[in-house]
Amino acid sequence: MGLMSPEEYKMSIQRMKVNAYLDGKKIENLLENPVTQSVVEATAKLYALAADPQHEKVLTADSHLTGKKINRNLHVNRSPADLEARADMALLTSQTLGTCNYRCVGCDALNALASVTYEIDRVKGTEYHSRFHAFLGKIQAKDGALSGAVTDAKGNRGKGILEGDPDMYVHMAGRKTDGIIVRGAKLHQSGAFAAHETLVLPGGALRKGEEDYAVAFVVPNSARGITYILQYNPLSVEREQAEDIFHLGNPQFGQRETCLMVFDDVFIPYENVFLCGEAEFAGVLIQRFAKTHRMNCGGACKVGFADIIIGAAQLAAEYAGTEKAPHIREAITHMVRISEASHACAIAAAVKGKEEPLGSGVYMPDDLFGNVAKISTAHGFWQIMALAGDIAGGLVVTLPSFKELKNPATKSYVEKYLKAAVPAEKRMRITKVLQNWTAGLHGPGTWHGAGSTQAQMISLHRAANIEEKKRLAKRIAGIED
Amino acid sequence: MGLMSPEEYKMSIQRMKVNAYLDGKKIENLLENPVTQSVVEATAKLYALAADPQHEKVLTADSHLTGKKINRNLHVNRSPADLEARADMALLTSQTLGTCNYRCVGCDALNALASVTYEIDRVKGTEYHSRFHAFLGKIQAKDGALSGAVTDAKGNRGKGILEGDPDMYVHMAGRKTDGIIVRGAKLHQSGAFAAHETLVLPGGALRKGEEDYAVAFVVPNSARGITYILQYNPLSVEREQAEDIFHLGNPQFGQRETCLMVFDDVFIPYENVFLCGEAEFAGVLIQRFAKTHRMNCGGACKVGFADIIIGAAQLAAEYAGTEKAPHIREAITHMVRISEASHACAIAAAVKGKEEPLGSGVYMPDDLFGNVAKISTAHGFWQIMALAGDIAGGLVVTLPSFKELKNPATKSYVEKYLKAAVPAEKRMRITKVLQNWTAGLHGPGTWHGAGSTQAQMISLHRAANIEEKKRLAKRIAGIED
Amino acid sequence: MGLMSPEEYKMSIQRMKVNAYLDGKKIENLLENPVTQSVVEATAKLYALAADPQHEKVLTADSHLTGKKINRNLHVNRSPADLEARADMALLTSQTLGTCNYRCVGCDALNALASVTYEIDRVKGTEYHSRFHAFLGKIQAKDGALSGAVTDAKGNRGKGILEGDPDMYVHMAGRKTDGIIVRGAKLHQSGAFAAHETLVLPGGALRKGEEDYAVAFVVPNSARGITYILQYNPLSVEREQAEDIFHLGNPQFGQRETCLMVFDDVFIPYENVFLCGEAEFAGVLIQRFAKTHRMNCGGACKVGFADIIIGAAQLAAEYAGTEKAPHIREAITHMVRISEASHACAIAAAVKGKEEPLGSGVYMPDDLFGNVAKISTAHGFWQIMALAGDIAGGLVVTLPSFKELKNPATKSYVEKYLKAAVPAEKRMRITKVLQNWTAGLHGPGTWHGAGSTQAQMISLHRAANIEEKKRLAKRIAGIED
Amino acid sequence: MGLMSPEEYKMSIQRMKVNAYLDGKKIENLLENPVTQSVVEATAKLYALAADPQHEKVLTADSHLTGKKINRNLHVNRSPADLEARADMALLTSQTLGTCNYRCVGCDALNALASVTYEIDRVKGTEYHSRFHAFLGKIQAKDGALSGAVTDAKGNRGKGILEGDPDMYVHMAGRKTDGIIVRGAKLHQSGAFAAHETLVLPGGALRKGEEDYAVAFVVPNSARGITYILQYNPLSVEREQAEDIFHLGNPQFGQRETCLMVFDDVFIPYENVFLCGEAEFAGVLIQRFAKTHRMNCGGACKVGFADIIIGAAQLAAEYAGTEKAPHIREAITHMVRISEASHACAIAAAVKGKEEPLGSGVYMPDDLFGNVAKISTAHGFWQIMALAGDIAGGLVVTLPSFKELKNPATKSYVEKYLKAAVPAEKRMRITKVLQNWTAGLHGPGTWHGAGSTQAQMISLHRAANIEEKKRLAKRIAGIED
Repeated sequence: MGLMSPEEYKMSIQRMKVNAYLDGKKIENLLENPVTQSVVEATAKLYALAADPQHEKVLTADSHLTGKKINRNLHVNRSPADLEARADMALLTSQTLGTCNYRCVGCDALNALASVTYEIDRVKGTEYHSRFHAFLGKIQAKDGALSGAVTDAKGNRGKGILEGDPDMYVHMAGRKTDGIIVRGAKLHQSGAFAAHETLVLPGGALRKGEEDYAVAFVVPNSARGITYILQYNPLSVEREQAEDIFHLGNPQFGQRETCLMVFDDVFIPYENVFLCGEAEFAGVLIQRFAKTHRMNCGGACKVGFADIIIGAAQLAAEYAGTEKAPHIREAITHMVRISEASHACAIAAAVKGKEEPLGSGVYMPDDLFGNVAKISTAHGFWQIMALAGDIAGGLVVTLPSFKELKNPATKSYVEKYLKAAVPAEKRMRITKVLQNWTAGLHGPGTWHGAGSTQAQMISLHRAANIEEKKRLAKRIAGIED
Repeated sequence: MGLMSPEEYKMSIQRMKVNAYLDGKKIENLLENPVTQSVVEATAKLYALAADPQHEKVLTADSHLTGKKINRNLHVNRSPADLEARADMALLTSQTLGTCNYRCVGCDALNALASVTYEIDRVKGTEYHSRFHAFLGKIQAKDGALSGAVTDAKGNRGKGILEGDPDMYVHMAGRKTDGIIVRGAKLHQSGAFAAHETLVLPGGALRKGEEDYAVAFVVPNSARGITYILQYNPLSVEREQAEDIFHLGNPQFGQRETCLMVFDDVFIPYENVFLCGEAEFAGVLIQRFAKTHRMNCGGACKVGFADIIIGAAQLAAEYAGTEKAPHIREAITHMVRISEASHACAIAAAVKGKEEPLGSGVYMPDDLFGNVAKISTAHGFWQIMALAGDIAGGLVVTLPSFKELKNPATKSYVEKYLKAAVPAEKRMRITKVLQNWTAGLHGPGTWHGAGSTQAQMISLHRAANIEEKKRLAKRIAGIED
Repeated sequence: MGLMSPEEYKMSIQRMKVNAYLDGKKIENLLENPVTQSVVEATAKLYALAADPQHEKVLTADSHLTGKKINRNLHVNRSPADLEARADMALLTSQTLGTCNYRCVGCDALNALASVTYEIDRVKGTEYHSRFHAFLGKIQAKDGALSGAVTDAKGNRGKGILEGDPDMYVHMAGRKTDGIIVRGAKLHQSGAFAAHETLVLPGGALRKGEEDYAVAFVVPNSARGITYILQYNPLSVEREQAEDIFHLGNPQFGQRETCLMVFDDVFIPYENVFLCGEAEFAGVLIQRFAKTHRMNCGGACKVGFADIIIGAAQLAAEYAGTEKAPHIREAITHMVRISEASHACAIAAAVKGKEEPLGSGVYMPDDLFGNVAKISTAHGFWQIMALAGDIAGGLVVTLPSFKELKNPATKSYVEKYLKAAVPAEKRMRITKVLQNWTAGLHGPGTWHGAGSTQAQMISLHRAANIEEKKRLAKRIAGIED
Repeated sequence: MGLMSPEEYKMSIQRMKVNAYLDGKKIENLLENPVTQSVVEATAKLYALAADPQHEKVLTADSHLTGKKINRNLHVNRSPADLEARADMALLTSQTLGTCNYRCVGCDALNALASVTYEIDRVKGTEYHSRFHAFLGKIQAKDGALSGAVTDAKGNRGKGILEGDPDMYVHMAGRKTDGIIVRGAKLHQSGAFAAHETLVLPGGALRKGEEDYAVAFVVPNSARGITYILQYNPLSVEREQAEDIFHLGNPQFGQRETCLMVFDDVFIPYENVFLCGEAEFAGVLIQRFAKTHRMNCGGACKVGFADIIIGAAQLAAEYAGTEKAPHIREAITHMVRISEASHACAIAAAVKGKEEPLGSGVYMPDDLFGNVAKISTAHGFWQIMALAGDIAGGLVVTLPSFKELKNPATKSYVEKYLKAAVPAEKRMRITKVLQNWTAGLHGPGTWHGAGSTQAQMISLHRAANIEEKKRLAKRIAGIED
């Protein structure tokens, strides 16, 4: 076995039977349903990029277990250079797909486990790290698409974990001799149904008494007891009904497709369990996951999206003949400024990355820059959408159907009146791309990817060395305590 | 005749035959097509509000022509109090409909004509003002829904009107003894197809040589030669396919529906023509239109929308149990601050309104505050959407279909895992409302309503008395010239 | 007696002996010390403006006690029109002085007392309102300059009033048969030393047990036991040392001069006491004060300053020859936009003002718009300073001394190399004005005038009708409870 | 010779006679005048830091000419690691001094010349590069403090170089057999008078016909014909008059001191001339200078300042007892976020640095990230000042003199009423530090350091690969040309 080809990936998904629902109906074939097809196509493209000599350096790595070439999405970062390549992968896949690298969360979850299982074993004398390595070796060998699941359903946030319905957080509902039974649900799972396996982490720090919730494991996505309930929004309906995907805003790869992933007493054999009751390690596990994920999500993934938006806005201006107006040039430049400031944060987070814990060989990005990347992007992406929405013009809202271009009653009108510096169809197409970005689900999505901004503000406050800054100020002020 | 009832309005639309297309197909019945139905329902609601004693004061006025009670959408403002009531109407209809008052542009266009026809007649000895009054009396008497059309197709903006395709701007393609022939197209027409008549103004200032483009007129919306090509976007498809409108983000009244309105050699009798070649008045006409429209669009209409968004965000927080977190309270307060600052601009624009031109009896809002209202809102509405998108949580993006609530395979999961401080369905419903606002077409729409922000910046620079400010600075500096 | 003339005011201040200190030294003569002189000059100018027929309408009013013409700074607002005139006064004095109307806080304090003494009397059967009217009649008759004092020293904010040093808040340290003894200190008192009397209010809401702190009174500024310790900063030193005040950024009227005003067991006869132990009314008193003061401070006073800044920035650009650059025009327009949005809030607050409490005849501005005015300005003024600092160029920082213009060794160099579209001296002068605004104490001052922004956010949250907004959202969502 | 000690530096400045003026008077002794003393002290501290083993790695480097240890301010960057160290030096000196590293501009100017002289020689066959190396070897050997001068007086910006007074830009007023005569003036020169030599570059790109302006050279700061006219502002006066420097906002090192540096027919021997008429290279020279300088100025120097401000704001909150309020924590976190985003840009600019031109061995930072660093900081520093001004409280404006602490009449009052969680003096001291930063000249200074933001927006537009972004957008849109 080596790297999987796009075709092999599609065949494997064809064979895998998942219990998934969209708009109240069971999905019979992931490759044929127009919505799930976009996820399969995006994931297949990831396999294609890894096989493309031009992108190989970014999309593949050498396994530290075997030395063999593996997909970077299954790689444990062993150096700052690895972290840089990890961010570069996020940038490249966003630029190429205009949607999720659906293997991204799995990759960051895997790195968190590599680091924390090492630490648990040293503190508690457990054997999670070798168990994890056994799993890692297998999935690297078969080049499996690995999804990651973090966010619990949570229910009423005003209540603690132990106060409400016990199922609001994924937990062990039973322990057996050969494995555990897990129950609960994970929200906002990007594309899990079209990956082979999912790595599940606890969604937050845990306290004494919450040991049953301290559970991390990997599970095949077709496992008995797992149900996927897919998101459904205007863009889903539009795609379902489209006669020609080129009438859509991101024709091939679609919007980010997520699901509610329900675990209804799913059995997990111990060899696939990497945390099992050690509540005191849940916090550090999610924190290490967040470190890498915030760097990638804020400082690379959304930067790739911004590149598409900036390019499309510039084209829209050129197509309308307004590209030389000073305020258009300024708007474009501000979009670059905002986006590249986040990009810089990812680069800084990577190059300042450190081995954590010492001796593990696992490298984590700098937490301060990672959090700044994500917060800057959460605010900045709205500004970029706003600027693009301004440049794009009212047509982003009022665009007629592409079918009018074939309607004898309206074709000549649309061709005539939507023509500008280029023919109407070209203008409509770039406008549709911008509609997807400025009038779609990306704004709220950017707030919530990699966790809420408020969570990052708290992390940032912790990561910032405020005491050192106080020392500098006192020295300047001549204050001695 | 008196005020029309909602039922009478619907019947009249039923009778009116318009040549309209949606997604490449002709619309057979405006009341039955799910998309156009939302426009009819919104407009019918406007008639209902005028008949509602609670809102009568805002929605009706006394005609200065007849003294009879008329719908305020057909009223010419005669005082600052009228201007305040005009803005109050925009606020109320937005709060109620969550979409366009489709009679709004017509109302502001009508005020611009009342002012400018008076002025042209005084300068040129024409008789447009009485002609306009004749029309006004008739439409007030029958309480017709009047749409307004301003934005031309324009084509390549790098070229002047006379340089490219002559049809890119609506113009007189011929003059006959009893009327004129008009040709061209207006973009972004909000709901014209469900109004009775449309008032058409030139889209910008004109120069000598461009006399054929200096044309303003009213036309029945079913006139021969007019074709409506409707916008078509993900929300259109979602509405078309919805089994239950309560699965939509704005169930009854929908999103703002617009169209490309094509004039293919439409005949307009002279009695309906209010500008006919006086190129030097096109600029002032559009400027007067913009004055009132920017006040309403920026300082009242979007404020009403913001009220819905703020209420929905607060509910979403309460439903999730997060409403007491300081950052949530702060976000809500900022949303209020941003929205009410724009609201204050509309109030200031109205109370500082002046008769223009003197002797006309027509009152126009203050131009400085009107422009500030619109620019503040253009930027601020994105901030409000962003804050709402933050409060709303990831569910705004990842919400599953309402049909899952009836799907035996998923119903119990969705009910269980989306429940928080309230049952799942309630939470899903308010999330859907927020999806409509934070992940829909409102952001770009807000930039472009009432013209581009750049146009308003230019108006604002002109309206600001910079010379007086220089005088103040010189006095402080002790500079004497 | 009628309105005081500027000369009479100066003579009265000459006669008044206050115990004031600057830079560790006692001030012997307020009219001769360069720092306090600027306050006297600014206040004298207020008297001059009231006597100027051009400004009379704004600066004077008819007393509701006597019907006689009085200075508006001593007027109780009796209508929305009065509130508008009050804000207009703040605008005009800021435009004229470029510093504090030092009678402003006294005016707003006086309005709060007019309203609240009426209310206390009705609830408690006291006689504060008539006592207050007696005082009001006297000070109106002599046209006294009345200062207002609100902010207590407070000390450690982590502790409650009763937990720390009892003197951290002004309070009754003793009650006698004919009056009370007050002790404590008020911070940030703008120009009290150059006014005749000061109206003192409690600095915040009070609880049961804090009755001694519930004290409001008026006191002559030369009363025994009062000490003024003046602020001292780089601009103070610059003014002290200036050979020619025209080498300063605001030559005649200076920066806002404040002081720490210490009450060291000051005796106040009962006729001058307007709150004496009614702790439950302290909160409403400060809230009513804040209502008017935030409207004026945020929506008028700083708008007048902004007018000077905008004018100076425009002149700096013209003097440097850069005024036609698009980004300069845009920056100027944004400054106008920001400033006028706050201005609109003051207008809206005034016209939406209401009698409070009903029957009192006292009008208070709308609280929502007043708070929005102040918060918008607190943020916006920094943006205006920033934009002005950008337009002004590096010279704002690197400006040499005006004395170089007379130094034979450097005169020709400065004249030559600082010349641009105008001679060097003119350019230096406008640069000095901009230095005063963009590199002085105005930024922090704007945050803290009329209380902290956080206090206003809380007021705004309370003033916003969130429940009504929730109702609107539920109606749109089709949610029924 | 090796590294100079702080004492040797001071003695050398004592010996150097410069023709400098402050407030219209000649400066007799740079070490004794309180204003110039602060520059000498700051520069001496730079020498001390280089000798400090803790900071040696940052402050020194190995000369590529001799392999000997030199001060990093005289080093030519030979690798991305050098660029990182260069930025680290800017960070450290700002954190330590709270004012300029007065050798900074010289260092960046020197790097620009190293790169461009190599390029000119290859294109034109000149010998500037070896001449430059000869100079570099000498100044490295004696560890001279080298200033840099870039910004010309310019005069009326509406006119071209050749249209107005020829002296508005530094130029060759004559050429002799052994050297050239230069005339003109440089504005905004940071601390030139307390450095040993100054490297002078043209201030912008030049065209054919402007050859006389294409001149770069080094000159001893005491050269005949050079006059320094120092800036003079409120902080200068405050320092001149201070009895105790610990009553100032930055006691030891002061504010950034600049001067107008006049060249009145100064003779420069050819060995010190590194550009002499090659107008086509002026643009690239200033561009290379800007590359390094924007990275340092925006992404490191101001970050060090921000560290002091954040520390001081945190202390002010702790001293007042408000540090636990959520809005204070949030404000602190935002300050960190803003500052570190700029810091990340410097790191990214350094690690993405490249040899330029190839073969020269000289490394330049990435231009895109360098410009983003500076623009982000230009906007962000105002936000940081604003947030600090909010946290600091009104005392930043209304602080009394430190002398009141020794004034028997006021001492007890000040000690009592300004005490909070710490004694009054400590609180006053940190407030004074914050006054220096939030109410001083830093805001405008930040706009203009390293050139105007508009210049950086233009550079950024050029540095951004917009064509590549268009390609990405077209691919997503399915547009083929």
